[in-house]
Amino acid sequence: MNILEIIAKKRDKQELTTEEINFFVENYTNGNVTDYQAAALVMAIYINGMNYRETTDLTIAMSKSGEVLDLSELGTVVDKHSTGGIGDKITLILMPIIASMGIPSAKMSGRGLGFTGGTIDKLESIPGYNTSISIQEFINNVKSIGISLMGQTLNLAPADKKLYALRDTISCVDNIPLIASSIMSKKIAAGAEKIVLEVTVGSGAFMKTKENAEVLAQTMIKIGNLAGKETVCVLTNMDQPIGYSVGNSLEVKEAIEALKGNMQEDVKAIILELGSYMIKLAGKGDNLEENRKRIIENIENGKAMQKFKELVQKQCGDVLYIENPEKFEKANYIIPVTSEVEGYVKSMDNENIGHISCMLGAGRIHKEDKINNRVGIIIEKKIGDKVQVGDILGYIHADDQELGNNAKVKLQKSYEITTEYVERPEHILGVID
Amino acid sequence: MNILEIIAKKRDKQELTTEEINFFVENYTNGNVTDYQAAALVMAIYINGMNYRETTDLTIAMSKSGEVLDLSELGTVVDKHSTGGIGDKITLILMPIIASMGIPSAKMSGRGLGFTGGTIDKLESIPGYNTSISIQEFINNVKSIGISLMGQTLNLAPADKKLYALRDTISCVDNIPLIASSIMSKKIAAGAEKIVLEVTVGSGAFMKTKENAEVLAQTMIKIGNLAGKETVCVLTNMDQPIGYSVGNSLEVKEAIEALKGNMQEDVKAIILELGSYMIKLAGKGDNLEENRKRIIENIENGKAMQKFKELVQKQCGDVLYIENPEKFEKANYIIPVTSEVEGYVKSMDNENIGHISCMLGAGRIHKEDKINNRVGIIIEKKIGDKVQVGDILGYIHADDQELGNNAKVKLQKSYEITTEYVERPEHILGVID
Repeated sequence: MNILEIIAKKRDKQELTTEEINFFVENYTNGNVTDYQAAALVMAIYINGMNYRETTDLTIAMSKSGEVLDLSELGTVVDKHSTGGIGDKITLILMPIIASMGIPSAKMSGRGLGFTGGTIDKLESIPGYNTSISIQEFINNVKSIGISLMGQTLNLAPADKKLYALRDTISCVDNIPLIASSIMSKKIAAGAEKIVLEVTVGSGAFMKTKENAEVLAQTMIKIGNLAGKETVCVLTNMDQPIGYSVGNSLEVKEAIEALKGNMQEDVKAIILELGSYMIKLAGKGDNLEENRKRIIENIENGKAMQKFKELVQKQCGDVLYIENPEKFEKANYIIPVTSEVEGYVKSMDNENIGHISCMLGAGRIHKEDKINNRVGIIIEKKIGDKVQVGDILGYIHADDQELGNNAKVKLQKSYEITTEYVERPEHILGVID
Repeated sequence: MNILEIIAKKRDKQELTTEEINFFVENYTNGNVTDYQAAALVMAIYINGMNYRETTDLTIAMSKSGEVLDLSELGTVVDKHSTGGIGDKITLILMPIIASMGIPSAKMSGRGLGFTGGTIDKLESIPGYNTSISIQEFINNVKSIGISLMGQTLNLAPADKKLYALRDTISCVDNIPLIASSIMSKKIAAGAEKIVLEVTVGSGAFMKTKENAEVLAQTMIKIGNLAGKETVCVLTNMDQPIGYSVGNSLEVKEAIEALKGNMQEDVKAIILELGSYMIKLAGKGDNLEENRKRIIENIENGKAMQKFKELVQKQCGDVLYIENPEKFEKANYIIPVTSEVEGYVKSMDNENIGHISCMLGAGRIHKEDKINNRVGIIIEKKIGDKVQVGDILGYIHADDQELGNNAKVKLQKSYEITTEYVERPEHILGVID
């Protein structure tokens, strides 16, 4: 077997065998296959496609290319993953809820690139919270309090890292089999037994259309099934930010409110939908309607919030901040953004809102950039909302006045307001299992 | 303009503009575009194709990527090129013939890789012959005696060199637009005004079928026309070696015999076909039949041989070797290869014959390998010949006895002999202009 034959087969639209895919991943990871050979193969895959079997083989080979986390001693661990959105604080809310039901909640998260920080960056905006615990502590925490959220410290799926970086430089990012295997390889390496995936659709998401999102979802479910990891995909609307905050401590504060029961309808819809499937996959209840009720119950009776506090406490975070979110430091400037017209919010340029947040310092452009936890955006008006002239659309939280004023203009421009009535969008676009 | 957009366009089967192709070639040559980006683009081109305009633009951009030879002061120079064969001594015979008619014969040739040496290696088997003259001497020689054959000393079409080496490592060699632009870019950079191309077809050639050879020929003619270089392609059969010798000094000796009028019918057919078109393209006679007669005339009256001697003399070669070819050193062992069966030669494994020649030392595997001028193969029986048991199929000329005996066995195995009558093959398979 050699890489030239493998490239030639895919070039000629033939199916690659499991052995050939393993050979490629192994030898690309160790450097025997060069970047230009991988680039040629990836382009051939992009154009000529891979079937579900090949895509699954690529996923499994990449998941085994580095360290693999073994969580089997914790029982059935259900992982949750989102293909990404703006203002996504769902993990912060959902994992404590799930843990409060006695379902082991063990999740490794990455840091963010672009837009805002990742879940780990958000957690680090709680003073003291330690995301860099050891794997043994991580497992011990789940055993003792039922939950741990930590940063990705292991060398998980390095083949995926290498391939993703390559794809970025050769215009081969937006290809469904490659996206699906990239996501799933990391989930499998991270020890997930069952996976609930939020596939986001819209202007702030990777998938711009529902049709593409469905194909991606079906591909990931096929991979999950072929790899023996039961997988459910929930398609959600990402035409506007999730909830009302974009930024790191701003989102933690929104998450705390949510755990108190104060959720915007989109956050609530996503929490209930993903959560009810997580409970089902964990084998703790087949009736989804019942599961939704139990989620609301555990929010209302304070158990979910209690679990979040235990998590923060266990990982050395200052629980006083959770009990009194006003303790979170505020940005230097809080600049209101008002509407100059009257009408209904027809659309928001969600990707642009992500860029504004990043520009303010809430996200990073380069891996080594430092994140500013305090800055971001508070959204007051969303799609379907009626606005009068002078109404506040949102607030810019900035540490630099000039950046803040720039952001203000940009946020204003992100709103499209029409005179005609606009329906509120659906939040859940479908479930594929 | 950036390379990511260019890659994405070809990935999506769109046509690239002239500017985009120029951008790629320029930036790949200077290293701003990486090998893996070029690999992705080349694979996209391989799969999604290029039209004639794009192929011509790629050719012209590559031809301009390094030094360009200007032969305009010599008048209309007709270049001759073959896509390669085994035992190809046509240039050695044809260029002096053309020069003997007062048509400027200025040709730069490369060294060979694989099989046997190139034309330049063959010329160097004439003691003293200097292939490394300066460009000024080259031009002066053509001005004074009408002919010069030298090695490729200029940095012609470096983009093609770089791209060809890359294609070799990513299974993208056998693609007609890429082959056509590679050949034509070097010809154009080498200063050709008009081009006669021998496109070889068969087991010893790059193109295994006539259909593919025709597409390649049509592509090169289109490029030639779009680039303002009139081009004619002659398709020739390469199922067996050309003439009766394979090896460097062995082929020079066959060329000398040919210039005396002793040519095997395939050599004669190719010389007459290519030569008559070269005369036509040079503007020295539109009647091809008439041109063929003039070629034979100049062989018979000794003018062609005289021109060859002048060439050798001018470039410091020892003319005594031309006058008395017995002076060429012989190999240590001349081993007859006999037939063990009776019948007709049905086929010869021409590629294998090339490998035998290379194994004996007549060719090089690596650029830095030294060539042994004396070794090679003399072919006694060719396709369609009748053989008896014990008849000599050919002779191995070896300097090492063991290598020679190995070669003997391999040559025997290269012959397929059947009891049924076999027709002699056609030598000229068509002309496309």
